[in-house]
Amino acid sequence: MKKSELLALLQPEIEVIDTTMHQEFASINNTLLKEIIDYAVFNGGKRIRPLLTLLAARLCAFCKMPKGVGKEEELTPPIDLYRLAMVFEFLHAASLLHDDVIDNATQRRGKPSANTIWGTTHVILAGDFLHASAMTLAGTVGDSSTLNIIGSATTAMIEAEFLQMQTAAAKDLSEENYFTILRGKTGALIGSACEIGAYFTDAENEQQAALRRYGDALGLAFQVVDDLLDYQGYPENTGKAVGNDFVEGKMTLPLIYTLQNAEGDEKIFITHLLDGTPEQRQEHIEDIYPLIEKHEGFAYSRKGAETLVETAIESLDIFKDCQAKKTLIGLARYVLTREK
Amino acid sequence: MKKSELLALLQPEIEVIDTTMHQEFASINNTLLKEIIDYAVFNGGKRIRPLLTLLAARLCAFCKMPKGVGKEEELTPPIDLYRLAMVFEFLHAASLLHDDVIDNATQRRGKPSANTIWGTTHVILAGDFLHASAMTLAGTVGDSSTLNIIGSATTAMIEAEFLQMQTAAAKDLSEENYFTILRGKTGALIGSACEIGAYFTDAENEQQAALRRYGDALGLAFQVVDDLLDYQGYPENTGKAVGNDFVEGKMTLPLIYTLQNAEGDEKIFITHLLDGTPEQRQEHIEDIYPLIEKHEGFAYSRKGAETLVETAIESLDIFKDCQAKKTLIGLARYVLTREK
Repeated sequence: MKKSELLALLQPEIEVIDTTMHQEFASINNTLLKEIIDYAVFNGGKRIRPLLTLLAARLCAFCKMPKGVGKEEELTPPIDLYRLAMVFEFLHAASLLHDDVIDNATQRRGKPSANTIWGTTHVILAGDFLHASAMTLAGTVGDSSTLNIIGSATTAMIEAEFLQMQTAAAKDLSEENYFTILRGKTGALIGSACEIGAYFTDAENEQQAALRRYGDALGLAFQVVDDLLDYQGYPENTGKAVGNDFVEGKMTLPLIYTLQNAEGDEKIFITHLLDGTPEQRQEHIEDIYPLIEKHEGFAYSRKGAETLVETAIESLDIFKDCQAKKTLIGLARYVLTREK
Repeated sequence: MKKSELLALLQPEIEVIDTTMHQEFASINNTLLKEIIDYAVFNGGKRIRPLLTLLAARLCAFCKMPKGVGKEEELTPPIDLYRLAMVFEFLHAASLLHDDVIDNATQRRGKPSANTIWGTTHVILAGDFLHASAMTLAGTVGDSSTLNIIGSATTAMIEAEFLQMQTAAAKDLSEENYFTILRGKTGALIGSACEIGAYFTDAENEQQAALRRYGDALGLAFQVVDDLLDYQGYPENTGKAVGNDFVEGKMTLPLIYTLQNAEGDEKIFITHLLDGTPEQRQEHIEDIYPLIEKHEGFAYSRKGAETLVETAIESLDIFKDCQAKKTLIGLARYVLTREK
């Protein structure tokens, strides 16, 4: 499935998601708060998480239909499914607001970050508001199991952020810890977005677990590619300087793998740089690329992402073929081709 | 009821609340996160909010007992009630963590603030974690109505903080806006803590509404007294410099009332100071007290707090006399006598 085809399929859903979110925000009394939240949510996000909820629900609902009765394209999701799907966009936006405060970020998606415009105080509180709204929606539009799945993903994200802060700059970060952090930071929320779509339609446990696995693997693949793009992307696409993670001393898969396999002088050189300053790493950035190439750090990461995407796609084997399944497969493959 | 008597009655409940909270935190994997949360929660809080939930539940449960059957002191609240009660302590602690980051506060309850020890990043995330845990508990230990009541209180708190930031320093802050802010910032959560206690016991709607009114009024009274103590408290008790709100240009009831009633040169003098700098206000702090005294700003605030306490107590008229009712009345009266 081509990217343009994928986008054309998803666009109508995105429009309903956006309308539903606008309706939800209509009840905010404070105009400044509403302005910040509008900015944070309607700021060019791709709506991946709510789309996954909708697609997972469509897939499970279609698989329930007796053969020959009704058509997939006639399935009309109830408004509550859209309301539940947007919970994941709220949680994502809330965590970006707080992340930008934490990182003192000045840009987000090519525009000034919310904290640059409104300051730390307002943005911390706006994040809290989005977060509270999301959790309330999860447990009122959904039920207590819905809330439990989403709440666990949220707390897992935070535990992963703690682990990352404690270990990400440590040059002996293991591949295992790298994936543990990714699983919490990105996999958990994406996995639960898929799981909730299945749960909402009263899917069988096996289907719910399969969609969870799909989402977990997709989230991991997405993040591994993200870390690769940091080294190999085009700055005009990613909006970030090439090698930024290395300069910051952040350990990601290409470097972790290289450090595992380098020996002698090469290992000493890399370790020395990682013990040094960002300026020193910036100065030697041209030297690090050949080392990662030589030890196949990029190839290993790319292979890892591919394997994860295959795992995601295989998780869908138990489902009947249909448009929703094709779209989920298309989304997974898209992760490997993205350039930003 | 004397303060010592009140404390003796509440102490056993506080111990169960604390044990329940410790149990909840046992599932946190990250030791640093656990350390911050322990520090934030077990840091000398008075547990007023969870105590109110427990007392409201005891009151409603007792009122259901047929006459002569069973004794109030034999009522044993289920563990789920304690777990629901602690939600209010988590939300309170989460908001204090974020408030201290926002205010760059260095002290909290006479000890270094969490952000002073662990920095902004960790404390924002720890607040998010507590918040997510609280909301998940609310909707899983409780039901969707429980979550809705608590979620509305949380978002109301944030809307009130926005209103406060936009108006609190405005010298024409009306008494109405002052109370709107208080209602959101303090009343909403305390009101819902009481309401949830009633809801948990399947109390009649009338009883649930009465306990909500009790909590709303108690929260307002508490805050009005807090604002009075800022002017009249002993720094060794409150831990804050006397007249701190005035120096910061923060409009609270004594000053709002004075400004409403002052005329001519007096009004010009106060307005001029409020347009000036904190240093100028600090310099003239001795001049402002006689003006507030003259226009009865302190007496008016004290009277306001007393009326609110009476409203709170009258809300309990519909309940049978019992120990829980006496304790709730005692707590309301205590608000007027507190010195810190």
